[in-house]
Amino acid sequence: MADVSADNDPIQDDPPQVTAGGPATGGVVRIDSETTVPHAARRDRLRALLTGEGVQTLVVSDLINVRYLSGFTGSNAALLIDAAGPDDDRICTDGRYITQVGEQSPDLTAVIARDCAAELVALAAEQAPVIGFEAHVVTVEQCERLRERLFDTRPEADLRGVGRLVEDLRMVKDPGEVELLRMACQAADVALAAIIERGLLAPGRTEREVARALEWEMYARGADEISFETIVAAGANSAVPHHRPTDAVLASGDLVKIDFGAVVDGYHSDMTRTYVLDHASEWQREIYELVAEAQRAGREALSPGADLRAVDAAARDVIDGAGFGDQYVHGLGHGVGLEIHEAPGIGKLAAGTLPERAAVTVEPGIYLPGRGGVRIEDTLVVTAAGHRPELLTMTDKAFTIV
Amino acid sequence: MADVSADNDPIQDDPPQVTAGGPATGGVVRIDSETTVPHAARRDRLRALLTGEGVQTLVVSDLINVRYLSGFTGSNAALLIDAAGPDDDRICTDGRYITQVGEQSPDLTAVIARDCAAELVALAAEQAPVIGFEAHVVTVEQCERLRERLFDTRPEADLRGVGRLVEDLRMVKDPGEVELLRMACQAADVALAAIIERGLLAPGRTEREVARALEWEMYARGADEISFETIVAAGANSAVPHHRPTDAVLASGDLVKIDFGAVVDGYHSDMTRTYVLDHASEWQREIYELVAEAQRAGREALSPGADLRAVDAAARDVIDGAGFGDQYVHGLGHGVGLEIHEAPGIGKLAAGTLPERAAVTVEPGIYLPGRGGVRIEDTLVVTAAGHRPELLTMTDKAFTIV
Repeated sequence: MADVSADNDPIQDDPPQVTAGGPATGGVVRIDSETTVPHAARRDRLRALLTGEGVQTLVVSDLINVRYLSGFTGSNAALLIDAAGPDDDRICTDGRYITQVGEQSPDLTAVIARDCAAELVALAAEQAPVIGFEAHVVTVEQCERLRERLFDTRPEADLRGVGRLVEDLRMVKDPGEVELLRMACQAADVALAAIIERGLLAPGRTEREVARALEWEMYARGADEISFETIVAAGANSAVPHHRPTDAVLASGDLVKIDFGAVVDGYHSDMTRTYVLDHASEWQREIYELVAEAQRAGREALSPGADLRAVDAAARDVIDGAGFGDQYVHGLGHGVGLEIHEAPGIGKLAAGTLPERAAVTVEPGIYLPGRGGVRIEDTLVVTAAGHRPELLTMTDKAFTIV
Repeated sequence: MADVSADNDPIQDDPPQVTAGGPATGGVVRIDSETTVPHAARRDRLRALLTGEGVQTLVVSDLINVRYLSGFTGSNAALLIDAAGPDDDRICTDGRYITQVGEQSPDLTAVIARDCAAELVALAAEQAPVIGFEAHVVTVEQCERLRERLFDTRPEADLRGVGRLVEDLRMVKDPGEVELLRMACQAADVALAAIIERGLLAPGRTEREVARALEWEMYARGADEISFETIVAAGANSAVPHHRPTDAVLASGDLVKIDFGAVVDGYHSDMTRTYVLDHASEWQREIYELVAEAQRAGREALSPGADLRAVDAAARDVIDGAGFGDQYVHGLGHGVGLEIHEAPGIGKLAAGTLPERAAVTVEPGIYLPGRGGVRIEDTLVVTAAGHRPELLTMTDKAFTIV
């Protein structure tokens, strides 16, 4: 991705905030990721880990991991990675994808079969007696099938479950990935600004109408897909952390919580903003400012090597301290990339530290059942020690009455 | 669902075909499924199967299965079903969903915890020594965690993997489910008719533009979501069975294959149509008519009790007989419902028979690499023996030059 022309980069060094007043920039410039993503280098990084896991080969069957390592986006695939070197790496998919796999993964030899993981296990067994599989991906039933296939091929061979090797690699984003996340976040920023500008976030509209309008705008601004089912939650519904839009009509004085994102070339943006319609009550302003303060504290805690629980605590302590701890019922954030929720999770029970170049959300909230709730969420990239994280979601976060 | 008012039913007894000439009917009438779906009855049907599987309780952790059995749509949940009766049934989800679970599953006692399946395993162990889990859902890693939790709670208790009990129940659609599928298919039919009517399927447009327009129209016609990433594949791209829309520009003489669907209240429609732009070549017409004949044979083979391989063969034999067997690289169809791909699979390697009231697709295709491909797909419901299956996707299938 290093050769993405700076001329094509829609983001300035000092990017303007996108505000409710209107979009700062226009569409999204698409880059051709197929030819520039360093899939082979990613496979080499994984390869280097295998011996340490006690396996000579690894069958990768999680489809997102397969995509990350090969570029292939079909719905049935597995990958065989060999510790000895790339010559024996294989991708397997079925007959529907013969053309596609050649286009998306031209640097890998393809095997065509239906039961991809089993096929690759059998292939791997010809070379090595211990074959790794993704224990967090393969089901108990699939594992049984792999064992049977292995027994048929080489009875003395064995399977060994390995952990989240590829997910851990995926935590650290390369420049091309950050660029795609930037584009996805920009599509979301501009879409939100557009619907506010056009007066669509207003009393009389339904939650569903607002959600649809937002999604249409994201597509128009370069989104390939939406990141997840858009959340638009008005009035008391805003107290439901993951509310699904209904035909409920927005009313004056409502809190309206909007949690949404765009996907560009597989990379997801994730942003939440909460507005008040027409006029605000004191309690709304109070919990908003409290969540904003917690969110700021969370963002400021994002530095390479930071303990994940400490990052969570930085924001949580603000809310706990004000007595709203019981009304903040989820973690602070999560990694984001080829999946909307990926490593690292940032919460009370998280383990580990934050790597440099992780892309994560920071999204505290306070939910008062029957009354309303506020959540403020950004997507950011952790940068070198001593630097502020890079903010990818640019929409203004000041308390706003629309 | 029996109390859905017939006055609100947008489908006629003898529904008109939706043709490229324009939509036959307008929007989709939404029914309130929350209050009418027989979740408790579904749980009772599952309950009746447990003793036969050698378990007293079953922890259901597949989220679609949880939704089917409880109505709950959150992203973290599990269900405990007790063979003894409904009093000890439980739903578990985490704190984000306290409000939602009360609204969506008011007839179930909710347990709030993060690791839902483990929590319910521990709860189940207090009552019975053998606890079932879904072996096709639970990963090797999760199973290890369940075993540890169980050992902590009741060391002599045991876990036993069970098969696709809920998926098998889900194959047979109740009237409310068929109604939702009908609505989803109608949204897709009307959307396709609208984009053709508006001249959007034409030379000069890109695949991506056509896909987006189709999705916008589906949303406008009542879709909550799209069923899967819309496939619009023009010219040589139509030879890729699962092509992702690109900026490729549609040209005169192209085959354009469109595979898409809408989701209404969780239920997915699935339809493929292939058109030719402006003028057709003889080879295009030939493979089109062949696929159409095979598709008709497949539809006619849909009857309760039919062997799944025989249904596949009914269509495949037509294509094989004409010498294009190697260019038809996938199965004939699949079940459709809360998932876009569910049981039963209809293919060369399928096992079992077709139940009455299964909702399935019939979608043969011929793909000539570098030249183009044709697929024709409908969603249908298998009806009583001696009756034709109910066709849910109404768009005309005659060879059409747009």
